[in-house]
Amino acid sequence: MQVTAPLGVFDSGIGGLTVAAALMRRLPGEALAYLGDTARVPYGTKSPEVIRRYALRCAQFLVGQGAKLVVIACNTASACAVDVVRDTLDMPVVGVIEPGAALAARTTKNGRVGVIGTESTINSGSYQRALAAHDPHIDVLTAACPLFVPLAEEGLAGHHATRLLAEEYLRPLVARGIDTLVLGCTHYPLLVPVIADVCGSGVTIVNSADAVAEAVATKVGASGGGHPRHRFYATDVSDRVKRVGGAFLGSVLEHVELVDL
Amino acid sequence: MQVTAPLGVFDSGIGGLTVAAALMRRLPGEALAYLGDTARVPYGTKSPEVIRRYALRCAQFLVGQGAKLVVIACNTASACAVDVVRDTLDMPVVGVIEPGAALAARTTKNGRVGVIGTESTINSGSYQRALAAHDPHIDVLTAACPLFVPLAEEGLAGHHATRLLAEEYLRPLVARGIDTLVLGCTHYPLLVPVIADVCGSGVTIVNSADAVAEAVATKVGASGGGHPRHRFYATDVSDRVKRVGGAFLGSVLEHVELVDL
Repeated sequence: MQVTAPLGVFDSGIGGLTVAAALMRRLPGEALAYLGDTARVPYGTKSPEVIRRYALRCAQFLVGQGAKLVVIACNTASACAVDVVRDTLDMPVVGVIEPGAALAARTTKNGRVGVIGTESTINSGSYQRALAAHDPHIDVLTAACPLFVPLAEEGLAGHHATRLLAEEYLRPLVARGIDTLVLGCTHYPLLVPVIADVCGSGVTIVNSADAVAEAVATKVGASGGGHPRHRFYATDVSDRVKRVGGAFLGSVLEHVELVDL
Repeated sequence: MQVTAPLGVFDSGIGGLTVAAALMRRLPGEALAYLGDTARVPYGTKSPEVIRRYALRCAQFLVGQGAKLVVIACNTASACAVDVVRDTLDMPVVGVIEPGAALAARTTKNGRVGVIGTESTINSGSYQRALAAHDPHIDVLTAACPLFVPLAEEGLAGHHATRLLAEEYLRPLVARGIDTLVLGCTHYPLLVPVIADVCGSGVTIVNSADAVAEAVATKVGASGGGHPRHRFYATDVSDRVKRVGGAFLGSVLEHVELVDL
């Protein structure tokens, strides 16, 4: 029974599918139950109180689906709600902040780490605290990049407007000498080409999704074989969710089950 | 009692404050009760079923606040939910589609009208139907402009990235000879300078907010004098809501009351 229990993963929408994809690569024998709170996306502009309420409902839904572990695959929800979800649930809870911060702390050579994310994630100070916990001497330079989410969702990664905004967001961090940049939002992996290009070869990009998959692997141990059946749930399902979600997952998102939370 | 009952106005967020501002200009004696569903914004990427459910809850909240008339100051909600709100409420209900379409039909000389809005508004076909009801010979050319909302909210109206995206969205409409362009989203008035510049002097911009205020004025009759007390409610209140909302209202948004729907 325990063996077939899925890994629960939730996000405010479809961005967390980049984390789901990383989990499938790292733990191919594990089934996933993914919930996108697409009826209430985005969390990034909402207040911490509202985000905590929504995150708890999502986590409890996944518990109801038999999840043996819950991944909060949303930086905003991890920043605001990982403690309350951990205190409420009787199982391991993995957020995206801590693994990403740990990987960045191991990666930086000059101790200057950039973090980009939504306004809520940056304002929460969570990455700053998580990096300081690893090494209080790390200089953390942050930038909120509010246009990156819609640009990624609209498939405009290669548009010149995206390039212009990336320059505006990232150049101040590069000018201050960062050698490591944490993608503090699950949408940003789709923009890696333009982000890496603007930052230049002196900056290593840290994708939290891979760090999260590694953290989950240490908790669930050896992964069984076979072809696990993944399930996808969303609080609102549209052609857009399937279309854009497929781009984030990296494969066709065929069946998405509608749930009312 | 009836004289002091407020005009109820709701929107998915803060964009409808451009409609509230137009109502205050046109009907300075009327008090407003404005509700922004900021905890669930945006509606533009959600399904019609979800939008109808949310719109009904917003309208019923305003009725509970003693509203004598309800304005759906959100194109997406007007497109999907004006009928169900009208059928449910026992008072006049004004959406933003019909007044804007009527003004555009009166404005066009060559019968070629452009409409821009969110993906949901454009896909709903509501403007196309409303314009056809006025004149079946009008050629309606549409474009979804998904990046315009975040660009307006982030105060990037003057950014070159906004100019590039405006050219991409609008040039196909201009090339096909429109002489009138309907701003089918309450956020777009903040982008009028760049939109008008890209369209050129041969295109008249129709701002639905003014058309809505006119439609409401015909329903409530002469406006009383005095300094009515406006009330602002939101389902999520943050510094961001007050800051960006003030830009949309055109004046400081001091007190916003949090409500849970």
